[in-house]
Amino acid sequence: MAFQGKKLINNPNDVVTEFIEGLVETYPGLQYLDGFPEVKVVIRADVSGATYDKVAVISGGGSGHEPAHAGFVGEGMLTASICGDVFASPPVDSILAGIRAVTGPMGCLLIVTNYTGDRLNFGLAAEQARSEGYKIETVIVGDDCALPPPRGIAGRRGLAGTILVNKVAGAAAAAGLSLADVASEAKCASEMVGTMGVALSVCTLPGQVTSDRLGPGKMELGLGIHGEPGAAVADLQPVDVVVSHALKQILSPETNYVPITRGNRVVLMINGLGATPVMELMIAAGKTVPKLQLEFGLAVERVYTGSFMTSLDMAGFSISIMKADQTLLQRLDAPTKAPNWPVGSAGNRPPAKIPVPLPPSRSMKSEESLSRPLQLSEQGRILEVAIEAAANAVIDMRDSLNDWDSKVGDGDCGSTMYRGATAILDDMKKYYPLNDAAETVNEIGSSVRRAMGGTSGVLYTIFCKAAYARLKANLDSTVTAKQWAEGLEAAIDAVSKYGGASAGYRTLLDALIPALAVLKERLSAGADPSTAFVVSSEAALEGAESTKDMQAQAGRSSYVSVGILSTVPDPGAMAAAVWYRAAALAVKDKYRAS
Amino acid sequence: MAFQGKKLINNPNDVVTEFIEGLVETYPGLQYLDGFPEVKVVIRADVSGATYDKVAVISGGGSGHEPAHAGFVGEGMLTASICGDVFASPPVDSILAGIRAVTGPMGCLLIVTNYTGDRLNFGLAAEQARSEGYKIETVIVGDDCALPPPRGIAGRRGLAGTILVNKVAGAAAAAGLSLADVASEAKCASEMVGTMGVALSVCTLPGQVTSDRLGPGKMELGLGIHGEPGAAVADLQPVDVVVSHALKQILSPETNYVPITRGNRVVLMINGLGATPVMELMIAAGKTVPKLQLEFGLAVERVYTGSFMTSLDMAGFSISIMKADQTLLQRLDAPTKAPNWPVGSAGNRPPAKIPVPLPPSRSMKSEESLSRPLQLSEQGRILEVAIEAAANAVIDMRDSLNDWDSKVGDGDCGSTMYRGATAILDDMKKYYPLNDAAETVNEIGSSVRRAMGGTSGVLYTIFCKAAYARLKANLDSTVTAKQWAEGLEAAIDAVSKYGGASAGYRTLLDALIPALAVLKERLSAGADPSTAFVVSSEAALEGAESTKDMQAQAGRSSYVSVGILSTVPDPGAMAAAVWYRAAALAVKDKYRAS
Repeated sequence: MAFQGKKLINNPNDVVTEFIEGLVETYPGLQYLDGFPEVKVVIRADVSGATYDKVAVISGGGSGHEPAHAGFVGEGMLTASICGDVFASPPVDSILAGIRAVTGPMGCLLIVTNYTGDRLNFGLAAEQARSEGYKIETVIVGDDCALPPPRGIAGRRGLAGTILVNKVAGAAAAAGLSLADVASEAKCASEMVGTMGVALSVCTLPGQVTSDRLGPGKMELGLGIHGEPGAAVADLQPVDVVVSHALKQILSPETNYVPITRGNRVVLMINGLGATPVMELMIAAGKTVPKLQLEFGLAVERVYTGSFMTSLDMAGFSISIMKADQTLLQRLDAPTKAPNWPVGSAGNRPPAKIPVPLPPSRSMKSEESLSRPLQLSEQGRILEVAIEAAANAVIDMRDSLNDWDSKVGDGDCGSTMYRGATAILDDMKKYYPLNDAAETVNEIGSSVRRAMGGTSGVLYTIFCKAAYARLKANLDSTVTAKQWAEGLEAAIDAVSKYGGASAGYRTLLDALIPALAVLKERLSAGADPSTAFVVSSEAALEGAESTKDMQAQAGRSSYVSVGILSTVPDPGAMAAAVWYRAAALAVKDKYRAS
Repeated sequence: MAFQGKKLINNPNDVVTEFIEGLVETYPGLQYLDGFPEVKVVIRADVSGATYDKVAVISGGGSGHEPAHAGFVGEGMLTASICGDVFASPPVDSILAGIRAVTGPMGCLLIVTNYTGDRLNFGLAAEQARSEGYKIETVIVGDDCALPPPRGIAGRRGLAGTILVNKVAGAAAAAGLSLADVASEAKCASEMVGTMGVALSVCTLPGQVTSDRLGPGKMELGLGIHGEPGAAVADLQPVDVVVSHALKQILSPETNYVPITRGNRVVLMINGLGATPVMELMIAAGKTVPKLQLEFGLAVERVYTGSFMTSLDMAGFSISIMKADQTLLQRLDAPTKAPNWPVGSAGNRPPAKIPVPLPPSRSMKSEESLSRPLQLSEQGRILEVAIEAAANAVIDMRDSLNDWDSKVGDGDCGSTMYRGATAILDDMKKYYPLNDAAETVNEIGSSVRRAMGGTSGVLYTIFCKAAYARLKANLDSTVTAKQWAEGLEAAIDAVSKYGGASAGYRTLLDALIPALAVLKERLSAGADPSTAFVVSSEAALEGAESTKDMQAQAGRSSYVSVGILSTVPDPGAMAAAVWYRAAALAVKDKYRAS
């Protein structure tokens, strides 16, 4: 049973001309010859044949292999690309038009993939152009290693290795070499490269149905790039196995397709066939390199990974191996403006991995700051009672918080907060450096991060870390009420930014934002600090209660109906109000007692 | 019914680490932190945090969006990319490791996609890094325009627009700007960009089954990039319609997501979602540009077409539109070594198309050479009888050739050759410039090309054009026998090269190659030229007869059994031998008569 493949196109007959229109919109360095629908030729916008002082390098063939070859037109690679219809060789007149458009006195090299139609049409165009006085050479690329040695040249298809030949020729031409020398380098390159592919799907021609010859769980090995069946069908294997098979085939001493032996230097191309994600291509590249090195004794000098010569929407990839001497590497590394030649593959590599940097050493902080001080300062004692009161208030609220949360969330708000509060009490006894308020806030954040988990755990950790960063910026180790307010503000801002909520979203911020507002207002009005905290904690409670009237805008509560929401306050807001108020009252008591 | 999607991977749990290994094999400018499996961080190989004198720019998030973001690490773009597991935010410690590895005294900008997990983990890492003394800013990108305005920030997802923000920030950092200025430019860019996508398929997570929620002939509009359902499902439409819908949504004055109005300058990104061929992306780009210009009155300054931020193997694309002033264009155009930032999109464009160059004018040749001369030279008379005899011999052979061909091919060899021979006789009377042998051979090629068709038509045209190019190289208009032999040799070489056959392949070359060998041998032995031709024509006939014993190696005959092949000669070889012999005998007669 065949099926209709899905494509984002318009009229299937227009795909090639519309592709070219999009291509030149994307790349201002490219133009096309105004001869649609017959003449579909992409050329360098900066080259005019009559005056071009380098050897022109032209490739082309049937379309459906994008970005090949039009995407490789640019200084340092192709001068023009001749596009046929999908999987059909371009006609002679189209090739001739391309030759005439870009060929100057230095002549033109045609790089032709080894298919009968391409050979004949490019061949005839070459002879016709010669008869018009152009200097023309042609190089035919047949890099396929999938099939047993054919009796004639016809058997070895031109595959992704052609892209490497195009690059070598383009770089040689850009270096100012003569036509004979450019052709000679291209021919030499074409004899150094072998390719084999694997496909997971069959490609669909525009407007046609898709063959289902390849069943679920099957792959095709040694495929062509025109939808023709592969050399073999096999059960899908891990890519490790697939890569091993392809390498053995390409480098087989029996077929001797490429003159590569142990100790040689090679370049590798992993070429996606059109619908293969970059992730899979990179995995294949990462597995192929060590195999070439360890199993075949080859030095892998360059790796090109991407989708270069595709087969419409086929899933799969091909592997090309090319023997590379220093001259060839120079050609491959030479700069080019061709849009789709891979960037960043040139040059030699440093070590692939480096150690994970260590966090700033604990020893940077004073020993003292990492353990509970033997003697607490006044501020240390106040901080201790505030933390203790806040944590105990949260612990006492566990059941109520869980109850509310079971109506509007997943019912674990109380338990999560309980874990955090318990951890804080434990850790405070062990090592909170209470005389240093900023560092203590930081350690609260660490306790919370370790113990709480979930979104609220991350948010409270962010809360503490942001407050810590602000508090630490103060030079004096004694924290003033104003500085506490600044720390609270920084914490609220961070939670709002990273949590994505603001006032009225039915979150903990609906307790803390009103509290901060009142706190700042009272402090700037000159109120007694501990009173200001207590008064602001009333605003926190009011704010938390008011969440009953709010619609949830973030988190799970956003899926709960208004009717249910109005019966309970947001448990996160209530928890925040409760610990804030407990701390404020404890500080007030402490000051009163002292 | 869900199904198992096919992937070329190994263990599904290892896809991200194996991707990174392949990435650094491909790009020697990249390294990774040696902290697999938890810490998956790709960094610039040339940056070391302690000494880095620019603002570090870090992005990241869940994997499965390759090449985003690791493929955008490089000078001028990202300094590091933090990779989570597939579709999962990276953990805080991983982000911290990346920050520590690349952040110097200038500080670090974190560019975060607007998902709760990313916001919280990057946010906490930012606060932790600040507490360690690093200067950190964060910018959160939410460019999704698919959904109605959300009540909270959570609704606008970070999509492909993030790539443009990364580029702007990276370029600003490379220009030496301060952290505050880099962050400000990134934030501004993030507010200028809107994105909407369309998908033809649902992505498959490694090792999981694929949802089939999207039926045949359906597409999903306004999708996310984590496999979550799109905003709407619709029947598949031509891409023109899809593009129009997406543009209306992005630029909707109701949602007012991006501050773009008529007359503005914009850049366009067409982003493939993982399994979309370049052809389809380019078609979409080509259709989007004129719509933005004509329907929305926008100046499209740059077009970026490719697969930048994908969703595993999802088929489809997203469109991003970003308002762009001169500063932003400079940032986008600034050079970068990031491997996957598109090459060749920068700068302003020349006209997209130029006229097809005209072939060299007929008027370049003398009038005389394009019409049958009133008075034939001796050579002209001899050429005429030779052509006449050769053509008539082919015409007489029609039925035999068809008969042989019906046994080993498609049965039309005689008819095809007959069409060519008849056309030659007609055209010769009208306009062959018989006194100019080279031009006459060229015109024979043109007659054949027009009349014959098929592979044999192309091959005979190549034959004539190659002979013409060689004959024309002679300075004297009288062609010697040796020059005819050289012309024949050039013709045989061209047919062999482009047709892919050589001696013994059971083709016309098996008549012509032996004939040429004998001709050259006799001529260099000093034989009378016309006799040498006749003797060589016997070799042609013998060669043609000998094809009975050959296996076919090219063309349709290669599928026919040896038993049948041995009963008939190759019809193409017989036709070649017959016309060659007829011409030789006619010339000999002519000389004898004169």
